[in-house]
Amino acid sequence: MSAKVELKWTNDMSFEASVNGHTIILDAEPHVGGQDRGPRPKPLILVALAGCTGMDVISILNKMRVQVDGFKVDVDATMTEEHPRYYDHFTIKYIFKGNDLPMDKLEKAVNLSQEKYCGVSEMLRKSSTISHEIIIEE
Amino acid sequence: MSAKVELKWTNDMSFEASVNGHTIILDAEPHVGGQDRGPRPKPLILVALAGCTGMDVISILNKMRVQVDGFKVDVDATMTEEHPRYYDHFTIKYIFKGNDLPMDKLEKAVNLSQEKYCGVSEMLRKSSTISHEIIIEE
Repeated sequence: MSAKVELKWTNDMSFEASVNGHTIILDAEPHVGGQDRGPRPKPLILVALAGCTGMDVISILNKMRVQVDGFKVDVDATMTEEHPRYYDHFTIKYIFKGNDLPMDKLEKAVNLSQEKYCGVSEMLRKSSTISHEIIIEE
Repeated sequence: MSAKVELKWTNDMSFEASVNGHTIILDAEPHVGGQDRGPRPKPLILVALAGCTGMDVISILNKMRVQVDGFKVDVDATMTEEHPRYYDHFTIKYIFKGNDLPMDKLEKAVNLSQEKYCGVSEMLRKSSTISHEIIIEE
């Protein structure tokens, strides 16, 4: 199995990425010559992590017949001091909304993703540490 | 320094990510319950890599006063056989368009990015290998 992404420079610091048939615009901030037409490239790693584990969790909860009213995955990351700077720690917050949600099943779904299914988490743990917490908003 | 991304589940396997004030929609393929409203999460790692090194190279070439007519960064990745599957090798193609482009300066810009500036490359080298080639299209 493999993956392929094409990135095309458009102008200044702006690029168009083609991924799974969809287009994502990337751009730099104005103070480094960009126009902020899209996000910076590096935090897309956080999006990949949040999306990978978020899809796992929704899919596992479906199989467990656990219904949630809302679900968010917030990811914070800290960076190395030394250049080239990269993320050395990720904190994932799994935030569920619903009444009488079974915490044991939410924990099981999150742990299955973190320990067994999420390839992005597995990959990032080679260069970084990852911690997580589960929050229920009623 | 730190980074923050928020991901909100919308419906089925679809999520909206908020990153640097921009929204990216993620979705799964139909055969796993998605509607392909956006890309899958995992290949966003390839977009992060292509964008990080692509912005470096354009920025360095600007400083070197090298003008190109076109510039693309294509990234291919292979995955581990074992689950959870992640990318274990990336191949980056830097494709420049222009007449009489100075290969030595293009190489210098690419090498500076790969060896000194690109934090995404530095991070991914902890879990994977990265190779690259430079192509000039006249």
